[in-house]
Amino acid sequence: MTEKRTDQLKFAVFMTGDSNYHNAGWRLPGAYNDAGLRLDRWIEFAQTMERGKLDMLFIADGIGTAGIDNLKATRANPKVDRMEPFTLLSALASVTKHIGLAATAHTTYNEPYHIARQFASLDHLSGGRAGWNFVTGANAEDAKNFSRDSHQVHGDRYDRAEEFADVCIGLWDSYEDDAFKRDKDTGVYVDTDKLHVLNHKGKYFQVKGPLSVARPPQGHPVLIQAGMSEPARELSARVADAVFTSQPTFEEAHAFYADIKNRMDKYGRNPNDLKILPGVAIFTGRTAEEAEEKYEALSALVNPAAAVALLSARTGIDLTGVPLDEPVPELKGNDVRVSNPQLMFKLAQREKLTLRGLVQRYAAAGPHNMVRGTPSQVADQLEYWFLNRAADGFIFLPVYLPGALNDFVDMIVPELQRRGLFRKEYEGKTLRENMGLPRPENVFLKR
Amino acid sequence: MTEKRTDQLKFAVFMTGDSNYHNAGWRLPGAYNDAGLRLDRWIEFAQTMERGKLDMLFIADGIGTAGIDNLKATRANPKVDRMEPFTLLSALASVTKHIGLAATAHTTYNEPYHIARQFASLDHLSGGRAGWNFVTGANAEDAKNFSRDSHQVHGDRYDRAEEFADVCIGLWDSYEDDAFKRDKDTGVYVDTDKLHVLNHKGKYFQVKGPLSVARPPQGHPVLIQAGMSEPARELSARVADAVFTSQPTFEEAHAFYADIKNRMDKYGRNPNDLKILPGVAIFTGRTAEEAEEKYEALSALVNPAAAVALLSARTGIDLTGVPLDEPVPELKGNDVRVSNPQLMFKLAQREKLTLRGLVQRYAAAGPHNMVRGTPSQVADQLEYWFLNRAADGFIFLPVYLPGALNDFVDMIVPELQRRGLFRKEYEGKTLRENMGLPRPENVFLKR
Repeated sequence: MTEKRTDQLKFAVFMTGDSNYHNAGWRLPGAYNDAGLRLDRWIEFAQTMERGKLDMLFIADGIGTAGIDNLKATRANPKVDRMEPFTLLSALASVTKHIGLAATAHTTYNEPYHIARQFASLDHLSGGRAGWNFVTGANAEDAKNFSRDSHQVHGDRYDRAEEFADVCIGLWDSYEDDAFKRDKDTGVYVDTDKLHVLNHKGKYFQVKGPLSVARPPQGHPVLIQAGMSEPARELSARVADAVFTSQPTFEEAHAFYADIKNRMDKYGRNPNDLKILPGVAIFTGRTAEEAEEKYEALSALVNPAAAVALLSARTGIDLTGVPLDEPVPELKGNDVRVSNPQLMFKLAQREKLTLRGLVQRYAAAGPHNMVRGTPSQVADQLEYWFLNRAADGFIFLPVYLPGALNDFVDMIVPELQRRGLFRKEYEGKTLRENMGLPRPENVFLKR
Repeated sequence: MTEKRTDQLKFAVFMTGDSNYHNAGWRLPGAYNDAGLRLDRWIEFAQTMERGKLDMLFIADGIGTAGIDNLKATRANPKVDRMEPFTLLSALASVTKHIGLAATAHTTYNEPYHIARQFASLDHLSGGRAGWNFVTGANAEDAKNFSRDSHQVHGDRYDRAEEFADVCIGLWDSYEDDAFKRDKDTGVYVDTDKLHVLNHKGKYFQVKGPLSVARPPQGHPVLIQAGMSEPARELSARVADAVFTSQPTFEEAHAFYADIKNRMDKYGRNPNDLKILPGVAIFTGRTAEEAEEKYEALSALVNPAAAVALLSARTGIDLTGVPLDEPVPELKGNDVRVSNPQLMFKLAQREKLTLRGLVQRYAAAGPHNMVRGTPSQVADQLEYWFLNRAADGFIFLPVYLPGALNDFVDMIVPELQRRGLFRKEYEGKTLRENMGLPRPENVFLKR
């Protein structure tokens, strides 16, 4: 843990819907309130990220509309309208060159053949820049969009997710890297000795294969995990290339980091081959006061009633009767860190927040770490987490757009570059190359 | 039927895999043999189509690899490796302005929520240029990639497809066109009075909704049907905006055209609101001899053994014992025109083709009409079909790329424009506007 680091920070950017991470970000004067379905905005964001040499544009996603039955919350919620990740990232692939393109895709109501194929195709289209955040889905309401009455229980969903990921890996490896000959003289298009039919027969899936796509440029897209439960941690240690995580404090992040890295050895993996990226929301300015003013300006735009309704919907705990300006009471709930909202209540209790303070903080940073200060102060904190192995990099949450992203690229990135903590040019062509991740061997050649 | 036409031809272009429609097209000197996964080639094709003012780039698709167990056929088959349609079309959306972008998407092993969402997103990304060829899937082997042992029977698949399409339509209409206010002052992002929750409960699907995407610019993407069976014809007459069809002769096309248009009245639809586009493979040149030489050059590249194996796989009839240079014998099979291959055997018998001749013709044009001649001779035939109501336009099959597409745009299109049969500029912004199709009303406002 005291070993000096010779690698550099990695940065993903968290985007979804209108992409203002702050729930009231869209209301700030100058912020975009219409990015959800405007491709030109997304092209601007992606090009800004490339200017900042960032690693990855990441799209969070849901397969339903959380809290839709609460019309008060829905009315103020800019996430009800958003583009589907595969289509959006593919549209960006043809107008960008370097930025990684990572999509959230759910395993619970989908088929591995479809998902494997879309990622393989995105990886080819982008020249090896695809990433997959594979999630089982936290929103029980989603089931109702997929002809089910209720959500699978958590353990089953993870079993299924594990098998789902393994099937996708087997499908990506259907053809060896050099299988396609396309020889005009002999008429041999593909060397069928380098074709491997998966014939998977498991508990949840029977998938014959092969995938109808050549092996992706990266071998497999970068695999991202975001769960924090016990089975999620084990799955991360076994197969993930990156972990997104919400860790509001250094101590929690440090413990999480050590836990995941320590689990890797039993799967024969090098701890450097998995990058742990906690979320961070940043408010910065030329002075600390300016940074603080940005936080206050956004907090003032939060509609407390709608924010309380949204937090209630996200946590499943009805907070509508709780007084706004008194400390949040101790809330009954499962202490297992299965879902992010429980982190929020811990934080409220630790920081003695009122409900108004909690919903303002939740609006700004969700259950993630929040940093406010000058570029130098912000860089100090990112550096501390990195050097002391609480993080290999971060997933940056742009609180409002394009402002917070521009601030990050124009103020924070140069400070990190000056300190030697971040690249000045992309190292490679693929996302794996830029993130320092190995290109996986074909599973059929290991056997 | 003798009424003079005041409208103009519509053209879609049939693409898939390496996109040489001719099975040996990739082997021709100068033809691209690597377009399957090269985005730069696809951008070139799409831009050529826009130069020719064509309506639509259409991607045929399968959710498996037909005939994969026959390694001899697979070895020579350039369709085993191809991009997934949603990702590919989205990548093209950001580098084109006019061309319609139509994807084949299967209803059989998919969920309407996913499909509705991807098309809605593509329609927004492209500014209203999406089209959906909805198919139930003809390849029984596909089931094995989706944890099923066997294909659904035909009737059931169509019942399910009908319900699938209706659910998608209901989901696209979740929000009225002007539901999104994004009002910074009031904090109202969406007017929930203009939100409609579908709550579909049917035989195959229960889907609550709403879709998490604003209503598509076209209302609904252009809906395309390609089936020829009785339930497919009924479904076309009820909901389709366009029909792709394989009709090797004018007489068959003319009968099919009348049949579909006549079925529309009982659904309260105007026959002009559905465009019938038979497939056509074209060999052209400055002289008729030059056109003929192109056909012969491509035919000479067909590997007879592989082509016989592929035709056997596609038809389910083992032709490997049939002599190559004798007339094709009468083949036992179902006379119902459920699948395209049976059209081929009718054609072989009518034209007294040898098996070699049949596989050469099948390699060039599949079960579609094939035209060879000078631009004027080709235009004569297209005009005849159009004026005599066997077609409202065509789906053009580029036998090799980029040559046949360039020939079409540079030689055939100008001839059709001179005759007043085809546009010189795009009429509108959306695919519906260019094709002269109405923008559908929101189904929730009809009730």
